[in-house]
Amino acid sequence: MPKPTIEWIGGPDGFARIIDQTLLPAEYKRVDIRTPQEMFEAIGSLRVRGAPAIGIAGACGVVLAGGCGDFPSEEALFAGLRKAGAYLGSSRPTAVNLAWAVERVLTAAQRAAGQGPAAVRKALLDEALAIYEEDRAVCRQIGEAGQEIIADGDTVLTHCNAGALATADYGTALAVIYRAGELGKTVRVYADETRPLLQGARLTAWELMDEGVDVTLVCDDMAATLMQSGKIDLVITGADRIAANGDTANKIGTLGLAVVAKEFSVPFYIAAPISTFDLDIPNGRAIPIEERPSQEVTEGFGRRTAPEGVKVFNPAFDVTPAGYITAIVTERGLIRNPDAASIADIAG
Amino acid sequence: MPKPTIEWIGGPDGFARIIDQTLLPAEYKRVDIRTPQEMFEAIGSLRVRGAPAIGIAGACGVVLAGGCGDFPSEEALFAGLRKAGAYLGSSRPTAVNLAWAVERVLTAAQRAAGQGPAAVRKALLDEALAIYEEDRAVCRQIGEAGQEIIADGDTVLTHCNAGALATADYGTALAVIYRAGELGKTVRVYADETRPLLQGARLTAWELMDEGVDVTLVCDDMAATLMQSGKIDLVITGADRIAANGDTANKIGTLGLAVVAKEFSVPFYIAAPISTFDLDIPNGRAIPIEERPSQEVTEGFGRRTAPEGVKVFNPAFDVTPAGYITAIVTERGLIRNPDAASIADIAG
Repeated sequence: MPKPTIEWIGGPDGFARIIDQTLLPAEYKRVDIRTPQEMFEAIGSLRVRGAPAIGIAGACGVVLAGGCGDFPSEEALFAGLRKAGAYLGSSRPTAVNLAWAVERVLTAAQRAAGQGPAAVRKALLDEALAIYEEDRAVCRQIGEAGQEIIADGDTVLTHCNAGALATADYGTALAVIYRAGELGKTVRVYADETRPLLQGARLTAWELMDEGVDVTLVCDDMAATLMQSGKIDLVITGADRIAANGDTANKIGTLGLAVVAKEFSVPFYIAAPISTFDLDIPNGRAIPIEERPSQEVTEGFGRRTAPEGVKVFNPAFDVTPAGYITAIVTERGLIRNPDAASIADIAG
Repeated sequence: MPKPTIEWIGGPDGFARIIDQTLLPAEYKRVDIRTPQEMFEAIGSLRVRGAPAIGIAGACGVVLAGGCGDFPSEEALFAGLRKAGAYLGSSRPTAVNLAWAVERVLTAAQRAAGQGPAAVRKALLDEALAIYEEDRAVCRQIGEAGQEIIADGDTVLTHCNAGALATADYGTALAVIYRAGELGKTVRVYADETRPLLQGARLTAWELMDEGVDVTLVCDDMAATLMQSGKIDLVITGADRIAANGDTANKIGTLGLAVVAKEFSVPFYIAAPISTFDLDIPNGRAIPIEERPSQEVTEGFGRRTAPEGVKVFNPAFDVTPAGYITAIVTERGLIRNPDAASIADIAG
């Protein structure tokens, strides 16, 4: 069982404990997060990352807000919680799970209105823990549902990290691989390193090796030659937001993989919980794409690797049109050839 | 005028002087190469790189061999030169220009056979300098021929470095851009950083900025979103070896760009001298692909960025099938829709 990427320690006065993913793979260190500000920083700097995990982190951040302010009344508490929710929700704009989870804990708190601050804060924590437990179950269900697409002997290419480090359990994309292993299927993995922040090299390679999965690291620009030469049976990645028509925002580089996979007839799968769907957004053009600091590109490896003053374009995500996606693996089963109708059927 | 990446200093007893490209962009330093062993090391470790430049470097290495041995006879000198040629030719297997240039200086030396070691060594140097001068002219001709494909206001995406640092003059792919600038066309460039060795970030960005060209750096996995969003008018890269049917080996990552370019209807061009064609090889499957050490991927930039012991696949090149190439820009003009017939016409 992989190490938990985020945990809640104690009751409503407790705190969150996360694996600091920015230190991996050199150092495995857990840090305690005790204020919404610390959680905002942890999410923004990617100490905790992955769409499901930042949902849980955002929810925990709102719980922390309930314990951090000096609220003279329940009304003041609610105002503080809403402010904290908006603040935490703005820490990363692309993943919809963050806004979804923050909204869920706020709504749960609202249901306890009138019962006093302690009850409100207990309701917040209960909901955050419910989101956590639901995500655990969802990971298992995605892993199970994904067995339709993976056979003994398959070689999978994945991008970024949609594993245990990104969720409350053993991941989304990687859940399919872990579950295949539990069932005795032998599966090999190629992991894209995933520039600029190297989540594939630092996180996916680390957690797969830790679990004894056969993994080979490649640079992102090597994926096409792997697919051309027939070495890849299927591609599976996670997702940060899926529009109503199936267009999918995921880590930058996913689009290129999907296009190349289609060209070389390699099936391309997204594995993601239903909470990743944003049915209010008709298609991918409406998904906000986070741009991140240029230093991630120019000095991401500990020393500067580009000329001083060079212009940089650093989008954190891209959008893969639904037409490139063979199926979306969800906790409610597969959505094959995803489009507005098939998505409304399962996620509506 | 960009700085010369390689020069010959003195007569047959002289030496080569190169820009040590492994130190860029942090440090601009020129180093002197006085033995074939030093040249082998400089080529193998990519202090000097780029298909045309390593052709010149290999030729210079054979000239150095003529001055380094203690050859009692002309026969012994020839044996030593052939041995040095084979040795230098093995320093990098994919670029055909290296073997081609080594063979040219050896053939020229053979023509001076019977005239004594000094005449043989002078013939070697004369041929190496001829290759150098020819490459300068070829760069200019490629730059001129490429004006057909580039218009005022265009935005070009390029990969790796096929510029002044890769040739005796202002490059192949970048020659088209530099020449456009000389003619008053305003051209913007996006440069892929080109993992694992970041020739795009370290070299292309550096030399374009040095020449005042508007350049923006991206990670390799960001190219697809640029093309999807219509920001790229054309892609131009260099080549290391082109088979008789037009299949093209170039820096790893080129294939993925070509596939994505085709999908999004962005013209994809190769710019390369005729010496890059290997008409003895019918198609790309027969091109040897160099694999390089895993450390280039796991600890290329000063600190380790992947788990200890992780398996790595690190091919230095990939092969783009001719069908993805809109045209090859050569010193003899454009080869549009390259295939065996059109290539035999121009390069045969």
